[in-house]
Amino acid sequence: MMISSVSELLVSDKFLQEVQVKGWVRTFRSNRFIALNDGSTIKNIQCVVDFENTDENTLKRIATGAAVNIKGTLIESQGRGQTVEIQVSELEILGDSNPDEYPIQPKKHSMEFLRENAHLRVRTNTFSAVMRVRSALSFAVHKYFQENGFNYVNTPIVTGSDAEGAGEMFRVTTFEPNDAPTTEDGGVDYSQDFFGKETNLTVSGQLEAETFAMALGKVYTFGPTFRAENSNTTRHLAEFWMIEPEVAFCDLDGNMDLSEDFIKSVLAYVLEHCKDDLAFLEQRLTQEEKSKPQAERSEMTLIEKLHFVVDNNFKRVSYTEAIDILRNSKPNKKKKFQFPINEWGADLQSEHERYLVEKHFKCPVILFDYPANIKAFYMRLNDDGKTVRAMDVLFPGIGEIAGGSQREERYDVLLDKIKTMGIDEKELWWYLDLRKFGTAVHSGFGLGFERLVQFATGMGNIRDVIPFPRTPQNAEF
Amino acid sequence: MMISSVSELLVSDKFLQEVQVKGWVRTFRSNRFIALNDGSTIKNIQCVVDFENTDENTLKRIATGAAVNIKGTLIESQGRGQTVEIQVSELEILGDSNPDEYPIQPKKHSMEFLRENAHLRVRTNTFSAVMRVRSALSFAVHKYFQENGFNYVNTPIVTGSDAEGAGEMFRVTTFEPNDAPTTEDGGVDYSQDFFGKETNLTVSGQLEAETFAMALGKVYTFGPTFRAENSNTTRHLAEFWMIEPEVAFCDLDGNMDLSEDFIKSVLAYVLEHCKDDLAFLEQRLTQEEKSKPQAERSEMTLIEKLHFVVDNNFKRVSYTEAIDILRNSKPNKKKKFQFPINEWGADLQSEHERYLVEKHFKCPVILFDYPANIKAFYMRLNDDGKTVRAMDVLFPGIGEIAGGSQREERYDVLLDKIKTMGIDEKELWWYLDLRKFGTAVHSGFGLGFERLVQFATGMGNIRDVIPFPRTPQNAEF
Repeated sequence: MMISSVSELLVSDKFLQEVQVKGWVRTFRSNRFIALNDGSTIKNIQCVVDFENTDENTLKRIATGAAVNIKGTLIESQGRGQTVEIQVSELEILGDSNPDEYPIQPKKHSMEFLRENAHLRVRTNTFSAVMRVRSALSFAVHKYFQENGFNYVNTPIVTGSDAEGAGEMFRVTTFEPNDAPTTEDGGVDYSQDFFGKETNLTVSGQLEAETFAMALGKVYTFGPTFRAENSNTTRHLAEFWMIEPEVAFCDLDGNMDLSEDFIKSVLAYVLEHCKDDLAFLEQRLTQEEKSKPQAERSEMTLIEKLHFVVDNNFKRVSYTEAIDILRNSKPNKKKKFQFPINEWGADLQSEHERYLVEKHFKCPVILFDYPANIKAFYMRLNDDGKTVRAMDVLFPGIGEIAGGSQREERYDVLLDKIKTMGIDEKELWWYLDLRKFGTAVHSGFGLGFERLVQFATGMGNIRDVIPFPRTPQNAEF
Repeated sequence: MMISSVSELLVSDKFLQEVQVKGWVRTFRSNRFIALNDGSTIKNIQCVVDFENTDENTLKRIATGAAVNIKGTLIESQGRGQTVEIQVSELEILGDSNPDEYPIQPKKHSMEFLRENAHLRVRTNTFSAVMRVRSALSFAVHKYFQENGFNYVNTPIVTGSDAEGAGEMFRVTTFEPNDAPTTEDGGVDYSQDFFGKETNLTVSGQLEAETFAMALGKVYTFGPTFRAENSNTTRHLAEFWMIEPEVAFCDLDGNMDLSEDFIKSVLAYVLEHCKDDLAFLEQRLTQEEKSKPQAERSEMTLIEKLHFVVDNNFKRVSYTEAIDILRNSKPNKKKKFQFPINEWGADLQSEHERYLVEKHFKCPVILFDYPANIKAFYMRLNDDGKTVRAMDVLFPGIGEIAGGSQREERYDVLLDKIKTMGIDEKELWWYLDLRKFGTAVHSGFGLGFERLVQFATGMGNIRDVIPFPRTPQNAEF
């Protein structure tokens, strides 16, 4: 007999027909009702066991977490909140789950406990929902770019340079620690390491993606990136996935258009394709917020927040204008900001970004034209000589969700900047070549995928939106 | 004016209308005809310059590799092999390309030279075609799995264990070489390293993917994996992308069905969506093969090879049967195999796999039920006690393109195997948990993405199907 998935059966109208389904027992109550889940949906299907004709030993083994094979008749359900159920005719225990040992019982577990059992936490409603939304969101990313003429480019994970200087890096080596060969002057002889030079894990694929944009026109990366920063926060991971589109012949205005259209499109995709999971996650979030003081609760539910982004135009505001707004804002005057805004040139913090989005404009905001000295070397210098064509996309609850820029396409200006910032220009010979041969205006941005998943799922801790989080002192599994 | 892509214009019928296009000069001949490419397609659009009314300095700057902005009238082309061209009314040089310095001239460059200029090689016909096919193939992978109910899972890149033992690994650390802290007994004190333990780059996401399959049912990975093997061959990379589906309640037969259906589907996708690129790559391959001795040339063209896979049923043959065929084969009797097949238990080499596919069966082959002692610890033991439910998918020209197995789902049998193979069971506590709580039959396979791109593009060297290859002594860019 063909095996059906729970998601298929729940929308099936093949009443009174024989069906077969395999899955795991979520709960078993009254010695009769199995709530069965197979991961295809957050919903369970109710399987009604004829306990009078089932041997006692089997009944005992129907425990939370057990894998079972069920055959039976699909019937219209009598119970509330479900349309169909299965009247079980045959039940086989495929894999037992000893209730005295199985960690994932049908009760509330702490998030920390579940992180320690990350190999099992995806068997809970919350994590299965998060991981299905994550998967759908990934696909939406690829779908958007592919349908809009972008080529996917896999930039290297192991790199030979820390040119972007985006943060501390992880060393990649085949040397034994404390047993690396040395040169005559006592330094480490990297020529004998696997790659013949010092190598690290990438912090960004942008520079390599630019080489492809200057040939294929429109490209995007979507791969893992790394930061060896000792940040134990709810917003940082040592290993995370990043999306970086890069477009030739595109200026900052085009870049803002792209970021807005892209973000709206992928969130609209999950709104359409993950209705059941989002409904559950919305309920979860609302429940969680009830334990917070009134002032800290979000004014919007999860799905309202998604619509807030999808349905609003992103307001575009220059950094200079934003500084004016912030300087004159109530929280600044009343010294409510942790970092008061006194003058032009200040780096904005999450509290300022959220004020602009949540209180002032009440819509997603794109800030642009930032002071040159707080931004990276590759951003295009404006004619004023003090700002660069950078942009940050700001979201409610999060602050910055994406950051990008028009790239400096002028060879001389770029070389000057590289020298001024003390970067070794020899490391960037190939990056400079792009400005030497057929240079053109081009732009791109980077978006940390896990931040987007957090936004889409309402999960407060970034460790709960990636299967096996990597953080300081933690690389379990 | 809206900027059009070359791919749009080539199929446009908006004759006599004004159009604008930006791209790079591929060639400029007779002071008149620009072949313009913008990366959207392998085809160029011809732009006809009115050289009598264009100033000489501008004409001089129209060089191979220069970026230009062109406005003009779209007209039906007079030339052979093209349907439309642009009569240029305005031409602006956006970025020059000095012919005395630009490495990518319109002539044949050696593949090695192009590898050394990997930041520019994607501007050639061959590499732009390869990279567009690679991108389309990536998308086909996601599309296939998402449309078939699989969830994408991002397994960790940095891992704490070498449990699978698939090969030598790269160490990931924030220690300075030769300056790592030591414990009292003189060993390296890994508790002070970033993750608080020894960590490496992953060789496979399979074991972690299994944890997700046992909750979500059907999952797949698609991410970078690493081998620190000193293999300087045309088939090996130190960093490559791997696809690993994993399915609960699926036995080896189901796994064979999945691998066949998956591979056919993604290759059919590129046959449909990459016609122009494949036509070019087919021509390139045919040209290349002319320089080989007759005996080494492929009997099929590139597109014929793709159809050979898409249109044929994969023949399923047990390892034992394959050994019989090989032992009695002409090349074995005539001692033509480099590794003669004498007895059951031999590990098959590429030459044997290709013989089975190309000479004996003349179709893709799936071998199954391999000797247990040449396969990994997690493969399910058959009742004969000496073979495991492993499978390899064999392709013409390549040999093995994918390998997988039904996983050992029995706790005791798995634990025995782990102990016998000398693997530390404490490292695998979470993997063993899957067999303790709700275990079930499950299966999966791994497919090296670059091998698939090689097959789809006909490229002989694996370094030429990934943007920036990582190999021993090489991590440039």
